[in-house]
Amino acid sequence: MTPPHPEITPAACAETLQTFRDTGPLVQSLTNTVVTNWTANVLLAAGAAPAMVDNPHEAAEFAAVAGGVLVNLGTPQVETIAAMEEAVRGASAAGTPWVLDPVAAGGLSWRTEVGRRLLSLHEPPAIVRGNASEILGLAGGAGGRGVDSTDTAETALDAAHALACEHGTVVAVSGEVDHITDGTRLVRVHNGHVLLTRVTGVGCSLGALMAGVAAVTDDRVLAATTATALLTIAAEAAATESRGPGSFAVALLDQLALITPEGLESRLRIDGGTA
Amino acid sequence: MTPPHPEITPAACAETLQTFRDTGPLVQSLTNTVVTNWTANVLLAAGAAPAMVDNPHEAAEFAAVAGGVLVNLGTPQVETIAAMEEAVRGASAAGTPWVLDPVAAGGLSWRTEVGRRLLSLHEPPAIVRGNASEILGLAGGAGGRGVDSTDTAETALDAAHALACEHGTVVAVSGEVDHITDGTRLVRVHNGHVLLTRVTGVGCSLGALMAGVAAVTDDRVLAATTATALLTIAAEAAATESRGPGSFAVALLDQLALITPEGLESRLRIDGGTA
Amino acid sequence: MTPPHPEITPAACAETLQTFRDTGPLVQSLTNTVVTNWTANVLLAAGAAPAMVDNPHEAAEFAAVAGGVLVNLGTPQVETIAAMEEAVRGASAAGTPWVLDPVAAGGLSWRTEVGRRLLSLHEPPAIVRGNASEILGLAGGAGGRGVDSTDTAETALDAAHALACEHGTVVAVSGEVDHITDGTRLVRVHNGHVLLTRVTGVGCSLGALMAGVAAVTDDRVLAATTATALLTIAAEAAATESRGPGSFAVALLDQLALITPEGLESRLRIDGGTA
Repeated sequence: MTPPHPEITPAACAETLQTFRDTGPLVQSLTNTVVTNWTANVLLAAGAAPAMVDNPHEAAEFAAVAGGVLVNLGTPQVETIAAMEEAVRGASAAGTPWVLDPVAAGGLSWRTEVGRRLLSLHEPPAIVRGNASEILGLAGGAGGRGVDSTDTAETALDAAHALACEHGTVVAVSGEVDHITDGTRLVRVHNGHVLLTRVTGVGCSLGALMAGVAAVTDDRVLAATTATALLTIAAEAAATESRGPGSFAVALLDQLALITPEGLESRLRIDGGTA
Repeated sequence: MTPPHPEITPAACAETLQTFRDTGPLVQSLTNTVVTNWTANVLLAAGAAPAMVDNPHEAAEFAAVAGGVLVNLGTPQVETIAAMEEAVRGASAAGTPWVLDPVAAGGLSWRTEVGRRLLSLHEPPAIVRGNASEILGLAGGAGGRGVDSTDTAETALDAAHALACEHGTVVAVSGEVDHITDGTRLVRVHNGHVLLTRVTGVGCSLGALMAGVAAVTDDRVLAATTATALLTIAAEAAATESRGPGSFAVALLDQLALITPEGLESRLRIDGGTA
Repeated sequence: MTPPHPEITPAACAETLQTFRDTGPLVQSLTNTVVTNWTANVLLAAGAAPAMVDNPHEAAEFAAVAGGVLVNLGTPQVETIAAMEEAVRGASAAGTPWVLDPVAAGGLSWRTEVGRRLLSLHEPPAIVRGNASEILGLAGGAGGRGVDSTDTAETALDAAHALACEHGTVVAVSGEVDHITDGTRLVRVHNGHVLLTRVTGVGCSLGALMAGVAAVTDDRVLAATTATALLTIAAEAAATESRGPGSFAVALLDQLALITPEGLESRLRIDGGTA
């Protein structure tokens, strides 16, 4: 029998990546207008099938057949917010896991309210992903400036723990070290590269990858960790062969396709403990 | 005198590409939010002039001066659907050829209705372009999952033939082998590369290229074949010099600019017959 | 004491670029759907922090904390125009410089009216940036076809001068030679490369760079010149190492990060005079 809180190991992440590649999950992305193309290309490179169905007439219908759903608040408009609510309704009814990325929560009041409403509307998100300022902002603190985090991941750990426990979700705090917690387990991922901060939408695409991996495993901590591992290890490999943000972005897409489960297992640097 | 149904040959495609490059047609793209940037860059690389005028206040006005118009249903919203209807009205009144790309038709009911309404609203599209599931869905069958085709191009040939005859249009079914028919002629294009399925929006940009080539020739089968030839031959060349989806997309844009009419003629593998 | 109209020199531009890099200004971009991703990546590569807050509920709130604001009319919709008006209101109240890019002004009547209304709504823009056709169109003449300029920069100089004097703004006319004037001074930038016309959104991203540099200097002619210098010099360097529009776009992003203030100073070819 599987224990209720299995340990997150590089081997488990590698196995999950293999399942993800074998499955090619359909990921519905309701995301911001800056990163739609990038997000779709990240999903395709990694091995998933992207689809953006972000109108209120079809969002629920599609969430019922999608493997996972991403809701990203980067550029909310009245019509797309209505679509997000429909997508969450459809996902909740169908048991489809969904990921909330509360971009700029705390820093801007309108979207902060939208994010908090989505948290409690139907089923909770499988994963909430943000930088430290956004997690603090969603949990009730003051936010950063736009999409930048003005806080380190560590400072948001109490807020992440509280959000995870209150809503029965997993919270992933991106930063120089990524932190992932369900309120019981805490995983730290030490991979990554500073060039990730020089390409727009990398964090947003991580949320989409998490929605994709959540489609193939019920352990949401494992899903968030595997997605983070894939992206940050691909970034390390890409950085060695690029000389600026343009060539880095291209190499990152290549590496997302080239990284094997074995490569991921050997390069992944995680530790953890109790939240 | 030109026969009413001239044979489609590599030489005719090469000549059409030369005219396209000499003309630099203005292509109005009302397309989905995932592929706007990619579509514009594909058009620019190939030698056309892209413009996205997708609001209902200006869409008809612009369609009257554009060389060709693309209407792509990938991410419909109420305001952009109104713009599409205006664009089709303006194009029809001015005699501007327009292309319909019924993304995910059959799979999602709202947009399927939109696609069918656009087909019969004013002048029919010069070309309908989609994968097999979308063509089947538009014609009345069940569709696939999102933008993926779960059917091969061959299975959609009866539906393509019926659509072409009923609406007086050309239907292009994308797939491992591309099929293009006006109900009388049938052309099969055997070029292409599997990496085309790992970059988002390639099919969507093919629709835009078709709208551009339709601006320079009245033979819509020739237009659809020339556009398909250019994209798939550029893809073959790009694939030899890339190692993943990121570098492939970059090389594809380069090759769209580098492929000459002579190169296209020598590499094009088509056959045909009677539909 | 600084003279009211200091001369624009390569050394002054280099110093301004250094300040820009040291500051990393937050640039709010309300831009068209074709270029959102590209614009954000250009800003990140150059050293700024992009944020697109383009809904009417938050645009004013964010303009108060942004370093600079870009308003680009490429794909206006009712909701985003309302956001642009809010952003200009917020920027004007807070003293945040904003840049107007009147894409396709003159060629399309609805957006031309929007552009003229924005000019006089609150504080004037710090900089108006467009190609010759757009500047002529905004000033009252007939425009070009879409985003293409059918006029040379020189033909728009009278219109640029008139706009600058009437509204107390700086007008930057992009072209083979870029012209920048405040009605008193006139700067010509002779750098650049023809491949800039084969990648979508380069002009649009120049407007965003100008909003970013305007955040770090009160001399708007210097800001517009420095932004133009950075982009066109990066383009020259990128062109030497690319073979088509795809690889050029990648190299351009790399070069925007690699160009140093010293490199900019040594390569910049400007002259000027009295407008």
